[in-house]
Amino acid sequence: MKFSIERAVLLKAVSQAQSVVERRNTIPILANVLIEAEGDTVQFRATDLDIEVVDKAPAKVEQAGATTVSALMLHEIVRKLPDGALVAIADDPAAGRLSVQAGRSSFNLATLPKEDFPVMASSEYAANFAAKAGVLKRLFDKSKFAISTEETRYYLNGVYMHVATGEDGQVLRCVATDGHRLARIDAGLPDGASDMPGVIVPRKTVNELRKLLDDDDQEIAVSVSETKVRFATPAITLTSKVIDGTFPDYTRVIPVGNTRQLEVDAKEFAKAVDRVATVSSERSRAVKLSLEADKLVLSVNAPDAGAAEEELVVAYNDEPLEIGFNAKYLQEIADQVDRENAVFLFNSSGDPTLMREGGDTSAVYVVMPMRV
Amino acid sequence: MKFSIERAVLLKAVSQAQSVVERRNTIPILANVLIEAEGDTVQFRATDLDIEVVDKAPAKVEQAGATTVSALMLHEIVRKLPDGALVAIADDPAAGRLSVQAGRSSFNLATLPKEDFPVMASSEYAANFAAKAGVLKRLFDKSKFAISTEETRYYLNGVYMHVATGEDGQVLRCVATDGHRLARIDAGLPDGASDMPGVIVPRKTVNELRKLLDDDDQEIAVSVSETKVRFATPAITLTSKVIDGTFPDYTRVIPVGNTRQLEVDAKEFAKAVDRVATVSSERSRAVKLSLEADKLVLSVNAPDAGAAEEELVVAYNDEPLEIGFNAKYLQEIADQVDRENAVFLFNSSGDPTLMREGGDTSAVYVVMPMRV
Repeated sequence: MKFSIERAVLLKAVSQAQSVVERRNTIPILANVLIEAEGDTVQFRATDLDIEVVDKAPAKVEQAGATTVSALMLHEIVRKLPDGALVAIADDPAAGRLSVQAGRSSFNLATLPKEDFPVMASSEYAANFAAKAGVLKRLFDKSKFAISTEETRYYLNGVYMHVATGEDGQVLRCVATDGHRLARIDAGLPDGASDMPGVIVPRKTVNELRKLLDDDDQEIAVSVSETKVRFATPAITLTSKVIDGTFPDYTRVIPVGNTRQLEVDAKEFAKAVDRVATVSSERSRAVKLSLEADKLVLSVNAPDAGAAEEELVVAYNDEPLEIGFNAKYLQEIADQVDRENAVFLFNSSGDPTLMREGGDTSAVYVVMPMRV
Repeated sequence: MKFSIERAVLLKAVSQAQSVVERRNTIPILANVLIEAEGDTVQFRATDLDIEVVDKAPAKVEQAGATTVSALMLHEIVRKLPDGALVAIADDPAAGRLSVQAGRSSFNLATLPKEDFPVMASSEYAANFAAKAGVLKRLFDKSKFAISTEETRYYLNGVYMHVATGEDGQVLRCVATDGHRLARIDAGLPDGASDMPGVIVPRKTVNELRKLLDDDDQEIAVSVSETKVRFATPAITLTSKVIDGTFPDYTRVIPVGNTRQLEVDAKEFAKAVDRVATVSSERSRAVKLSLEADKLVLSVNAPDAGAAEEELVVAYNDEPLEIGFNAKYLQEIADQVDRENAVFLFNSSGDPTLMREGGDTSAVYVVMPMRV
């Protein structure tokens, strides 16, 4: 194998590949990236056995071939090379070394045989469709904060992407919950997606996917089977196993009879929650919301440290209500609001509360109250 | 006590005070800042028993008085208040509470009695002098990287500031070393400093002092006794105990007979060291320098991971030399160089090496070689 490639192109490809590689590996080859040169393209493939990323980059290939080398070390080297450098890469299979040269710098890295690299088995996908990067970004960005971190509830450790029936027909829906709060985000159903099985996309995959979604207008090719999901741009293909479990019936958790409506400036609300929470001890952080006509008082009482109170002018014209929430949960849902106002719908101080972004029903959040 | 103060002024004063406060305290009052209001000034005092910072800020004092409150919590609150807010602060000694109000936000913080706050005893200083912030910044910034972190060698856990005799007479000198490398930085001796006892300024004090030195032209009032050192601007006074120990005779460590001279672009050199060190395992990181006429080859050989080599065009016209160094040490001294070139003076591959910044002898660095 022998090829030369621009440093910036190489850096981009290797960055995306190495981020999938786990920092601590018991299997040495999993620390490596598989480099395959052929035609006018070099492929960089990395995996943690659950996720596989393949990056294609244009290069001047003098001799086709393949080998594997430490992803982290290759990335560090390329990162430190001067901007604009042309990098010449060649392997010496007899010596088990890969040479990397640029200008007056030269490196010789230990390789492992390409045959040992675990390439993910290809599969049949039940549905293939295209979606704009901006649409996928919104679906996952707005839901991922609610992903559970409890490993025992493994079926909540991801975002449940599925086809559902919304108010105006079928939608592509992402749901995440940790039992304390829930996010349900809808988008128009892309052509070809209606046969898609519902899949739980693991947290790490959601984070890796995010790196493919920089350009809102880019078309992303999505493929879904019962066991795998794939997202691809012309240059990068991200394939991931999905979580083997059943996502709970979230629809029962979303309250429908909440009628007491509070409308509040989302940014001001989030800042006020952050301020009053300062006096509370790290763990509990319960914030009390006291509502009366067009007035919201946020308060925190931490007997040992102090107390805090903040008043906001809001739109509210129902009977007075007092309800408590975890400050972090309140802030996180308020942070999701893109438009000016957050609309909260309460029932009683013991019932789950619903939040919308203004009048938009395509993004709905539920948060459980706390006793205060 | 009752006063009102601008949020930005308060934030600056409290920030500087709280940074001295240790995050974990067994003595509760050490987590607090002592607030003293009198005349048209409020003083914020914080201490860890070794360092004391006093910040003065202008305020509209309605009622003089003093109390103590959690430094971290007060800082967090003020930081989160909106820009431009006017903050009203008042204490309620009977309830043991301090109220902090701004706009529609109000906080009530637990206080501890001001009588319990450990104010540092004032002392007689043997020398008082003034120095430009820029001069002190250079003395400490260029030496502090060499401070030892070994707690058993407590007398190396700081910068030794003292009066010494340089090539052109008396100088104010800062020296730090960890036994592997040494920095010796000189500045012109300020008026009134000649009677100063040599003191070892602890690492934490060096870091806190740095925050006083933003404006190069500011005059800093320096006071030194056998046991304490004080740095003051009109607004802030930083008083610190010095390390109770004897700094070793560093002059014997600085080689005088090194004649083999290498001149190299400092930035290029540091980058090249960084690049070749990539292939080495974290711990050892030995870089070999191979010198011959006007050519320097940097190389690292890590049998399990790989090898790296880089060639630099340099000025060198002595006989060939091979010498090894810890990569981190080499980079750190090269990073100190402000001007273009670093000048290295070698003796043999087993002897300490000296580095200067170009022809400037007021900053001298020594680094011990490693076997490679």
